Amino acid sequence: MNAYYAAIFTSKRTEHDPKGYSSMADKMDELASEQPGFIRVESVRDFEGNGITVSYWESLEAIQKWKENSKHQVAQQKGKDTWYSKYDVQICKVMREYSLKENE
Amino acid sequence: MNAYYAAIFTSKRTEHDPKGYSSMADKMDELASEQPGFIRVESVRDFEGNGITVSYWESLEAIQKWKENSKHQVAQQKGKDTWYSKYDVQICKVMREYSLKENE
Repeated sequence: MNAYYAAIFTSKRTEHDPKGYSSMADKMDELASEQPGFIRVESVRDFEGNGITVSYWESLEAIQKWKENSKHQVAQQKGKDTWYSKYDVQICKVMREYSLKENE
Repeated sequence: MNAYYAAIFTSKRTEHDPKGYSSMADKMDELASEQPGFIRVESVRDFEGNGITVSYWESLEAIQKWKENSKHQVAQQKGKDTWYSKYDVQICKVMREYSLKENE
């Protein structure tokens, strides 16, 4: 297994501007996927507004560059000001992995 | 920041036995929280059956012991046989963290 990294974003949504939010969230997932070092992203949000998004990256530098991306910075500020009542971010190194695949 | 670890469990539910599932899932979260080295757990599942659960632990050994816990083993087998069409587990070391708190 090659070394890779995960950014865990755990958030609670406010009730503000639900339409603007989901369009921006989709745009950010798409923009993330175009960044150097991006591997994949998994995102789940429930009907109460609790969300967990995990993005996977080839290096810590790739995560740092994505954090500093100017369009992403605008979205982050809007997230703080309007969309999230709280959030947590953990930047992690993946040590082990295992899985069950479909039809296994 | 003291070193700590995250177990990321990303899953897709089947449509089998929804009631038995949620009672077992709650029981497992409760049992996990009683294990040595447990810090906290965050869990989100959307209406399409996509779920991400992240549990946080003080050591890799604590995660390994929880994986080997006999009641958890029974739940894991049932998960493979019945509840999940697929899942991924990543065991990670948390390198950095930041957050926005409520009313910040």
